[in-house]
Amino acid sequence: MLKMKVQVVGLDQISMLPVVILTDVMEEKFLPLVIGPAEANAISLALEEVEPPRPMTHDLMLSVVATLGGSVDKVVITDLVEETYYAQVFVKTEEKEHQIDARPSDSIALALRCDAPIFVEQKVAEKAMVAKRQDDPEMEDFKRFLENLTPDDFRKNN
Amino acid sequence: MLKMKVQVVGLDQISMLPVVILTDVMEEKFLPLVIGPAEANAISLALEEVEPPRPMTHDLMLSVVATLGGSVDKVVITDLVEETYYAQVFVKTEEKEHQIDARPSDSIALALRCDAPIFVEQKVAEKAMVAKRQDDPEMEDFKRFLENLTPDDFRKNN
Repeated sequence: MLKMKVQVVGLDQISMLPVVILTDVMEEKFLPLVIGPAEANAISLALEEVEPPRPMTHDLMLSVVATLGGSVDKVVITDLVEETYYAQVFVKTEEKEHQIDARPSDSIALALRCDAPIFVEQKVAEKAMVAKRQDDPEMEDFKRFLENLTPDDFRKNN
Repeated sequence: MLKMKVQVVGLDQISMLPVVILTDVMEEKFLPLVIGPAEANAISLALEEVEPPRPMTHDLMLSVVATLGGSVDKVVITDLVEETYYAQVFVKTEEKEHQIDARPSDSIALALRCDAPIFVEQKVAEKAMVAKRQDDPEMEDFKRFLENLTPDDFRKNN
């Protein structure tokens, strides 16, 4: 498993779809995920450490976990099947560790709210991660994509 | 406390904001709530009993509740302060009943997914519920509003 962090969340200026970009700790490879606008917003609020007056959906979810005596241990992007990503939220209680099926976007929105680590399974990384290679002409496109993808852009469009 | 059910969720054709309308069991009074588009979508999916291939956010939340040995007993819209509504999700475990602060929209989206009853506190009902009175000219506007507010409309605009 590869440990990841969120590089940026925003609107892809070409497709106009919300995207979150994960990167490995060395920032050598990237994993772009197309997500829903609500989940992009939830991730964006967590990254900017906005404290909403009422609990937003993922705040409520964390509150449920804590109230029932659990804590989010980690989240893992576990699989990629026909362009659909799958993830699991690992919730630890006194008795055991539970694995709960989730979408990557919800998992990331949860993890950011409780400083839980985000991992991607090796097989998903191998299939889907984009390498940072200076001699790769596609990298130029991807760099432009990253430059155009800012939380500011996202907020304006949300 | 007054038991409520969801009358309809959709886009208000004038403000273009997503709204959910709750009504008492006799359908004599209505409680319209302006909500977020993601929560409107979550409520709409539950009303139409759509089974998504991956768990949506509120499906994940229910899955968390069940995995940690709880069940949603009821949800209650508890307060209305300066046009902001507050709610609580009541989660029962073997040991006790927990009350978790939430927004009404998330609470309703959760309740619909597990057939938990939705209540509104008397003081909120008195302040905010719109009565069905045939001689009320405002009722005509409200009726038109209800007629224009259909899940179909919402889906088209989402």
